Amino acid sequence: MKKFKKPDRKDRGPRRPQGARAPISRAQAGRTLTTAPGQIPRGRCVVGIHAVNELLKVRPKAVDHLWLREKYNDHSELSSLFELGKAQGVRVQLHNPAVLDRVIASHQGVMAFTQEEPELDFPALEAAETATLVALDEVEDPHNLGAILRTAWLLGVQGILTPEHRSAHLSPAVSKVAQGAAEHIPVVRETALPERLKRLKEHGFWILGMSHKAKQTIYQLEVPKKVVWVLGSESSGLRKSVEGACDDFISIPQAVPEASYNVSVAAAMALGETFRQRQNP
Amino acid sequence: MKKFKKPDRKDRGPRRPQGARAPISRAQAGRTLTTAPGQIPRGRCVVGIHAVNELLKVRPKAVDHLWLREKYNDHSELSSLFELGKAQGVRVQLHNPAVLDRVIASHQGVMAFTQEEPELDFPALEAAETATLVALDEVEDPHNLGAILRTAWLLGVQGILTPEHRSAHLSPAVSKVAQGAAEHIPVVRETALPERLKRLKEHGFWILGMSHKAKQTIYQLEVPKKVVWVLGSESSGLRKSVEGACDDFISIPQAVPEASYNVSVAAAMALGETFRQRQNP
Repeated sequence: MKKFKKPDRKDRGPRRPQGARAPISRAQAGRTLTTAPGQIPRGRCVVGIHAVNELLKVRPKAVDHLWLREKYNDHSELSSLFELGKAQGVRVQLHNPAVLDRVIASHQGVMAFTQEEPELDFPALEAAETATLVALDEVEDPHNLGAILRTAWLLGVQGILTPEHRSAHLSPAVSKVAQGAAEHIPVVRETALPERLKRLKEHGFWILGMSHKAKQTIYQLEVPKKVVWVLGSESSGLRKSVEGACDDFISIPQAVPEASYNVSVAAAMALGETFRQRQNP
Repeated sequence: MKKFKKPDRKDRGPRRPQGARAPISRAQAGRTLTTAPGQIPRGRCVVGIHAVNELLKVRPKAVDHLWLREKYNDHSELSSLFELGKAQGVRVQLHNPAVLDRVIASHQGVMAFTQEEPELDFPALEAAETATLVALDEVEDPHNLGAILRTAWLLGVQGILTPEHRSAHLSPAVSKVAQGAAEHIPVVRETALPERLKRLKEHGFWILGMSHKAKQTIYQLEVPKKVVWVLGSESSGLRKSVEGACDDFISIPQAVPEASYNVSVAAAMALGETFRQRQNP
């Protein structure tokens, strides 16, 4: 019985230089659309159907690459994103899902890359009569930052401040959970968060730290017109330096004393009460 | 040069029957603690430091197994759980983290197994003057059910109703996110959710569906003394049959019309407003 024999090197054609791409097949040649091996582009990566849709709507000119999974056209929302991307002249690439998995597993078959993100206009904030900011002190869970971004967008918040280190930033996972909110709400990395809070205070902002030990609750408070809600990580709370920059501390009532709110729920309740009071003064 | 030679079968001692456990080493012999190959026990699996701690506190007699990762004693909270489990006579097993990973990746080095869970006392609810329930219609994301459990516990909710199918239930992931709330708040699987809602209505409950299309907002509503907040999945909303069982529909105000609240944030805002009104009538 003849066994399978590996062909001699010379039978397999010339050796490709290491790292070179496979040649484009006949089927792919001449299409603007390529199935490339998938080197991950630079810039901010935005993941998931809602998030990519919002990115294409808000900053169509700034999308460098749109990646879709192969067979995107068996899914109506992926097909719409493909059409939208092509209509806007975005470079679209189709990839094996395994290539997208290398960036993040929960990609829903689509991701996009951009160098742009929303920016916070500090001079405008300082001059404003009414404004709401959120400062997150060492909140590292991307789910929490993503969820807070989404609520912040819905409740008209101007921006989110975080420290430079030990904090979630605009990662692929955050963009996925934020479902488009990352295109609207700036997330500013502050090298010195307490200093920033002090400067905002000089421009009429009240700096309110959320703390379950505080006596005054969000419902007893008349929310100031210009406010920064400061929330810490669930495990360790606010750092001393950030605590020192706060004007006052506020709690959310709770029926049981031993547990604590998830930080994204606490943010939602503070922002919800802020919005309620401004709607019904 | 002499190469390594595999010993003859007879040199390696008697053959162990297939599937049999490795013999316990000298170091392990005589300890109540075993390092077993890790067949996953039956029953509800509770995961993570906070959740297991609450389980051991609330139902110490009903914990069948406590699993900790090897070298648990380099971590103070895992050591405390070990001591607590031993003091309560729970069977404690140490495992390679890979064994725990087989149940869920985000285990923090600890999980426990029990056959018990909190139960909802429907006759007491029907007789009560004030009560709050949450009904989740086809909410499948375990993160959302876990987060809602945690908020429900903090805000004194009596229980959560879900349909039998197409819904998250008390999975390991849910217990982890709920951080102990799953020991306090019953999650009832209803084979006919609309029927249950109708029966509750007969006993004085108002069935309020959350819908972003509703004109009346949570802040305009005087929350009834007995209320079921009904929330649907973010993608498809409430099913017709569940919608038909609702007395009214309520929205949460939002600054931008095109987005929608995460279901766990929507639940938090409805439950927060319910709690607020009851505290300050």
